[in-house]
Amino acid sequence: MRHTLSILVENRYGELARIVGLFSARGYNIESLTVAETLDSAVSCVTLVTSGDDRTIEQIVKQVNKLVRVLHVTDLTSTSHFERELVLINVKTETNAAMQTVLSLVSRNHLRVAEVMEDGLIIEATGEWKQINSLVEELMPFGIRHIVRTGTVAVWKNPTAEVMPHAATATAGE
Amino acid sequence: MRHTLSILVENRYGELARIVGLFSARGYNIESLTVAETLDSAVSCVTLVTSGDDRTIEQIVKQVNKLVRVLHVTDLTSTSHFERELVLINVKTETNAAMQTVLSLVSRNHLRVAEVMEDGLIIEATGEWKQINSLVEELMPFGIRHIVRTGTVAVWKNPTAEVMPHAATATAGE
Repeated sequence: MRHTLSILVENRYGELARIVGLFSARGYNIESLTVAETLDSAVSCVTLVTSGDDRTIEQIVKQVNKLVRVLHVTDLTSTSHFERELVLINVKTETNAAMQTVLSLVSRNHLRVAEVMEDGLIIEATGEWKQINSLVEELMPFGIRHIVRTGTVAVWKNPTAEVMPHAATATAGE
Repeated sequence: MRHTLSILVENRYGELARIVGLFSARGYNIESLTVAETLDSAVSCVTLVTSGDDRTIEQIVKQVNKLVRVLHVTDLTSTSHFERELVLINVKTETNAAMQTVLSLVSRNHLRVAEVMEDGLIIEATGEWKQINSLVEELMPFGIRHIVRTGTVAVWKNPTAEVMPHAATATAGE
């Protein structure tokens, strides 16, 4: 099963390597991972997607929780949350017809044209993992020059106090 | 100086840990990192932002390039590219006035309301790193319950053949 984990961690070098190492040590591949600062620049939030059996992932989560500089870990999979991913696609539109078809696909799906080049477009789209997959399939026939996906990020709909970055800072300052 | 690196790597467990380890071994902090599949599910693209002096980063790039499963590394900083970041913000709108102010900010900045809750909104925004920073500052006074940023991703405007995922696959299959 696909699991989305959210990890609050002190923003120091070496911490990410430790977290990632716990997954690779068990032979678990990380499908996607994003890490960036929270409101408190001393704390980073890692969103990590992995697939595997629930028991093993539960055990890895416990091990991540034991890392000294990890402030909080949640497996979002079973909680009420909201997921999104960003993708940038550099797609060829070498003929007028190709340009028109791609532009109508853009307007039909509420995507954004981020940049117009002589023979192509950079398209910016956000959506759930599956939506992005089908968008990529639709654009494939035109020729994709370059594509980058951020991987999934997720926010709680009703976060508890303990997952707040401020709460996390308080813990870090102990 | 802030550097944005794009790394194509075989999608195997342990590879991310090795890349991240090269930075932490030199005491370099990773400001943001995203990793997700490319068009070829056997190849992942890592976008990594770090700050430091140009010489040292050049050396780390060389070391990353030497890793067996790394197919290609580019320091995008000096090339023609396009950067974006996605942020999800769960913001409080407990009064009608707060709701109206936040909604007008949303429409003024072409943001999206991703979800409406009883006493708050989930806002979805994309932009450059600096733009996201100022948006966060504007929303701060209302009370941010939870925020997650993807970190920067970047695409080339004019990619060369060697950075194409398909080219990368050919290399991987050697």
